[in-house]
Amino acid sequence: MTFIHDDFLLSSKTAETLYHQYAEPMPIIDYHCHLEPEAIAEDRKFTDIVQLWLGGDHYKWRLMRSCGIDERYITGDAPAEEKFAAWACTLERSAGNPLYHWSMLELKRYFGYDGVLTTDNWRTVWAHCRRVIESGRLSARQIMIDSHVQAICTTDNPEDDLRFHQRLKEDERFPIAVLPAFRPDRAMNVEAEDFSVYIRRLGDRFGKRIEDYETLLAVLAEAMDHFQCLDCRTADHGLTYIPYKPADADEADRVFRLALKGEKLCREEEEAYKTRLLLDLAEQYACRGWVMQLHYGARRNNNARMFRRLGPDTGYDCIWGGKTGENLPAFLNTLEEKDVLPKTIVYSLDPTDNAMLDTVCGCFHQAGCRGKVQHGSAWWFNDHLRGMREHLEGLAADGVLGNFIGMLTDSRSFLSYTRHEYFRRILCELLGEWAEKGLYPMDMAALGRLVQDISYYNICEYFGLNERLKELK
Amino acid sequence: MTFIHDDFLLSSKTAETLYHQYAEPMPIIDYHCHLEPEAIAEDRKFTDIVQLWLGGDHYKWRLMRSCGIDERYITGDAPAEEKFAAWACTLERSAGNPLYHWSMLELKRYFGYDGVLTTDNWRTVWAHCRRVIESGRLSARQIMIDSHVQAICTTDNPEDDLRFHQRLKEDERFPIAVLPAFRPDRAMNVEAEDFSVYIRRLGDRFGKRIEDYETLLAVLAEAMDHFQCLDCRTADHGLTYIPYKPADADEADRVFRLALKGEKLCREEEEAYKTRLLLDLAEQYACRGWVMQLHYGARRNNNARMFRRLGPDTGYDCIWGGKTGENLPAFLNTLEEKDVLPKTIVYSLDPTDNAMLDTVCGCFHQAGCRGKVQHGSAWWFNDHLRGMREHLEGLAADGVLGNFIGMLTDSRSFLSYTRHEYFRRILCELLGEWAEKGLYPMDMAALGRLVQDISYYNICEYFGLNERLKELK
Amino acid sequence: MTFIHDDFLLSSKTAETLYHQYAEPMPIIDYHCHLEPEAIAEDRKFTDIVQLWLGGDHYKWRLMRSCGIDERYITGDAPAEEKFAAWACTLERSAGNPLYHWSMLELKRYFGYDGVLTTDNWRTVWAHCRRVIESGRLSARQIMIDSHVQAICTTDNPEDDLRFHQRLKEDERFPIAVLPAFRPDRAMNVEAEDFSVYIRRLGDRFGKRIEDYETLLAVLAEAMDHFQCLDCRTADHGLTYIPYKPADADEADRVFRLALKGEKLCREEEEAYKTRLLLDLAEQYACRGWVMQLHYGARRNNNARMFRRLGPDTGYDCIWGGKTGENLPAFLNTLEEKDVLPKTIVYSLDPTDNAMLDTVCGCFHQAGCRGKVQHGSAWWFNDHLRGMREHLEGLAADGVLGNFIGMLTDSRSFLSYTRHEYFRRILCELLGEWAEKGLYPMDMAALGRLVQDISYYNICEYFGLNERLKELK
Repeated sequence: MTFIHDDFLLSSKTAETLYHQYAEPMPIIDYHCHLEPEAIAEDRKFTDIVQLWLGGDHYKWRLMRSCGIDERYITGDAPAEEKFAAWACTLERSAGNPLYHWSMLELKRYFGYDGVLTTDNWRTVWAHCRRVIESGRLSARQIMIDSHVQAICTTDNPEDDLRFHQRLKEDERFPIAVLPAFRPDRAMNVEAEDFSVYIRRLGDRFGKRIEDYETLLAVLAEAMDHFQCLDCRTADHGLTYIPYKPADADEADRVFRLALKGEKLCREEEEAYKTRLLLDLAEQYACRGWVMQLHYGARRNNNARMFRRLGPDTGYDCIWGGKTGENLPAFLNTLEEKDVLPKTIVYSLDPTDNAMLDTVCGCFHQAGCRGKVQHGSAWWFNDHLRGMREHLEGLAADGVLGNFIGMLTDSRSFLSYTRHEYFRRILCELLGEWAEKGLYPMDMAALGRLVQDISYYNICEYFGLNERLKELK
Repeated sequence: MTFIHDDFLLSSKTAETLYHQYAEPMPIIDYHCHLEPEAIAEDRKFTDIVQLWLGGDHYKWRLMRSCGIDERYITGDAPAEEKFAAWACTLERSAGNPLYHWSMLELKRYFGYDGVLTTDNWRTVWAHCRRVIESGRLSARQIMIDSHVQAICTTDNPEDDLRFHQRLKEDERFPIAVLPAFRPDRAMNVEAEDFSVYIRRLGDRFGKRIEDYETLLAVLAEAMDHFQCLDCRTADHGLTYIPYKPADADEADRVFRLALKGEKLCREEEEAYKTRLLLDLAEQYACRGWVMQLHYGARRNNNARMFRRLGPDTGYDCIWGGKTGENLPAFLNTLEEKDVLPKTIVYSLDPTDNAMLDTVCGCFHQAGCRGKVQHGSAWWFNDHLRGMREHLEGLAADGVLGNFIGMLTDSRSFLSYTRHEYFRRILCELLGEWAEKGLYPMDMAALGRLVQDISYYNICEYFGLNERLKELK
Repeated sequence: MTFIHDDFLLSSKTAETLYHQYAEPMPIIDYHCHLEPEAIAEDRKFTDIVQLWLGGDHYKWRLMRSCGIDERYITGDAPAEEKFAAWACTLERSAGNPLYHWSMLELKRYFGYDGVLTTDNWRTVWAHCRRVIESGRLSARQIMIDSHVQAICTTDNPEDDLRFHQRLKEDERFPIAVLPAFRPDRAMNVEAEDFSVYIRRLGDRFGKRIEDYETLLAVLAEAMDHFQCLDCRTADHGLTYIPYKPADADEADRVFRLALKGEKLCREEEEAYKTRLLLDLAEQYACRGWVMQLHYGARRNNNARMFRRLGPDTGYDCIWGGKTGENLPAFLNTLEEKDVLPKTIVYSLDPTDNAMLDTVCGCFHQAGCRGKVQHGSAWWFNDHLRGMREHLEGLAADGVLGNFIGMLTDSRSFLSYTRHEYFRRILCELLGEWAEKGLYPMDMAALGRLVQDISYYNICEYFGLNERLKELK
């Protein structure tokens, strides 16, 4: 029997109509992801579903570990088939987890498998998937085209030469815009042990010796110019907390020099540097018309033993909990005061910040720009049915839902475009429910417009992609 | 088609019966609002719906700004008709926002307009509303009478002479009690730049020179006596956070004198003064049998540029987020220890305080008094369908729902009485749902009693208005 | 009419089937409660329902006080019948409170009363209950047997000689395992006024003079050995916040000696001692294969006047609110680093910690152990329909629901086993709802397995009770 049927997640006629007539036909603009541009440039082929599913997905690793599965079957050297069996076993216990739905959606959309994966049938599913993969149909580009993707923004370091973006831009056969996004986290993380090593490498890339803060800024601006040439529309920051310790350029310079010398900084110095740099970068983003994305609230690498074994981003992060966003209003106001506040999207890992964020966003605006400061889509540990619904309800209750710029995958996997489908179904279900309950008029044109705007048009407008997409080869 | 129909928000027979038989007939006692008594005394007439809707409503301004509308069409000099069009356009995007429902309720109840306001029909609605206004039926008093209001508590400064309250009390033709409420925020805000100016003005009003803390208290007590003569039943405080730095009167006096001299206070001094004054005032409230209302958790004026242009209360506030209520138990206990804890209603702007507040309220009680310390109705950014429902569910789960004193408008607009209707519908829907699901017995008498108590009788009893209302002209 | 009918809380066929076929037949293992082992050993008989209901239940006291009922009818000397009437009156107002459901469940399951208790019929119910009690059927043991209990863990001080546990273990006629649980709170609470008195008593019990930290640890280890002999499987801590101020044994020793001398400790010293001791104890638990339970986030004894009159645990506690759990990842990591992290269950009184806790738990794991670090069942003020549902949904969304070890009573009352029924109904309703909505396949075998695991089998496995239960007489 079909688990992922046409009306998956849709429980009313209105929701069904909204989804099938309005949401489903919309293309995808995935404005924040972690795909490797190289994989797209070379049109990578995939050899098995375990590579695709378990190759780099620490969401899945966490669940498997929770089930007491040995690391050998997770990131270790167990045969792919055994890893697949271990994952099937984990999945069956994971009722209510988004990975359950995502996995079944991916099986259906990319492998054409109709049923669910269970501990009983994993061999059948494995064989089925192998046949699909052997057919050679599943390449990076083909998946993107089949998913109706129109543009994506990858996540790139300032020192990146963006050669693959360049190659993709020049490739006239490939109809999808692959834009870089500027992510200068390593230049921000002044407390990191390898900071001075990194700064030297950054300088080398641009043929400069970076020995003071001013030069750092100049080099980063040069990097931005390069990104701009390749149609970059956005920068992105991963922050533990929103910094706000106002400091002038002299103070930032002093701290920067200390860090280059490898001296230990106090917390105030670190925050002063980060505040200054983030403000200076934000001003640059504003000048270039880029969107600034701020992700904050994660506590990372909580299991030191496993960190030594596997490194970062391997499934050992958690929600920080408490006050990591308290500086946001003051930070945004500083930019607003100078009239250099870029369009900004804020994502908190802590769902208890939701209402606060919705109300902060409402304090900053610009004539002619809808939803200038946005509370970004439910992020990471919140990116599930309930989290997305709560995010949407909060947004609607304390702001203007119709200005929302909707979903992004934030993913390392080419199969994750189903998350857009998942989001759109949840959105249509919610609006359908409101209309059926009489909370919004049963006006399909108005509802449909909301769905289309949130799924697609708002994103085009917000990221200034209307023109760029027209130029698309 | 009618959007606001008889059973708006009511999805079961039980909910419908509860609303129409029990809630709807109850009069309204609006124990916290920001109406101008002068407007009632002079029975102000309204000239157009834009004045009524957009004249002072920063909730609406925020949404319009979020939509990128130019300030000219919000607080500026654009023609009323164009502002109305801009609001219609904002509204259509605002599915799930309480302003959508409130606006449609107000159109229906006060203007008799059956449909919804959209970008397509705004000219029709505008013309319709103009006709109603030109008919002269919409005056301050008539709206209150039509809304079945029995009593309201306005929000008044200690130095107010309350002349309009006086006039209204003496006006035998007007059947509604307009009571003052004591709001001494400016005497609390010792850190304000104009504090000494304010204190001088307060002294002048009572013919005293206020040069020490003792005199300040005496003058405030004299003000309270005056409020008492005009049937004041409650005081109200707007606080950033609940202060609690115990200090004796000498310390409060020292800080007060420093402030009068215009000296800069440290955070500890400020908190010590506020703690002492709030405790001393609370004791006075207890002696007089007044209810103390505490509103806390707002972060105000976050956009400095717009603050300079428009001043406070113009739509630039947000939820503080985190720990602004942590002193509440110690603060209440100090009063309880001296046996001078008044009836108290606590409102937090931060919805993540809900469960904490529900459990704090349960720690303080008095024989013969139901719900002595109350977690007040979902406030400001929480005053929407979802926020009210969550507030009610939390209250019920950790306390006694049947003791709740229900809704208030907190509004500057005469049209806001529909918020009582909105709240009562949500309450009846919730209780109806519980009964239909078998979570509470299908005992209409018991359920109806809960509805009537929360809508009306509890408020009468809590504010000691039973006698006063009988005296009503 | 029957309020507690067969399908109470179950609104779909799937939910009904899951409950009646899978959940209901499962025995109960109540791994955290506050029953007196003496009462079980002597098979205590109960003289009236007020003793059972109001004898020591501060949950009920709070609600009665909120209703303005005089203390005489709560903890005072009013006749039992009048207290019962006061409780009936409180209950009727308490729609949406878990005590409403618990009370009706207890009336039905243990007294065979079909209807609800109201202000109108309390005399009838009182007479009914008296007849049941006079029949002599309601003894401690009989209630446990009728409730299908298989094992319980009580809460015991280290100095307890556990004579009643011993007696119960030897009693071949009693088929239920009554295991002790180790709760060394008083050895942790170094800031308490009577700390040195307590330490002396602890030493006396084991014939040792405890004058240094090393001896304290040795004595506690000896106590653990004794607990182990009586099949202890778990230790439990009640903490205001999770401490984390790393300190070596010398520092702990220094603070311990200061405390023995009655000297005032600063906050840092207190936290250093608690951190060290909790880490050392946790290591012991790991060695013994015990489960560590951590309860944190309560703010206790908020009403000083009533504390002086009634003492602790009388209904004057609340949720702390904010950051009491922020040290948890660092604390757990310290144990993980040394490879001495025991199985751990964490309970926060603050529901806004839920998502944070769900994500912290996922950072710690062990091959072969399902759900090694668990976010414990909704605790105390969260232990209601809504709180349990939110807890389950959060667990599912950010972890593996199928690893959850489910419910416990945490209760002082023998009637509280109905809370397991209540939890299981909520669990089955949730899973049934998911299956009916197409969020999980309608696979009754897989769903039934989840229900059975969460109700029973996971608990057996987690606490290592499989063998012990087989040995049961």
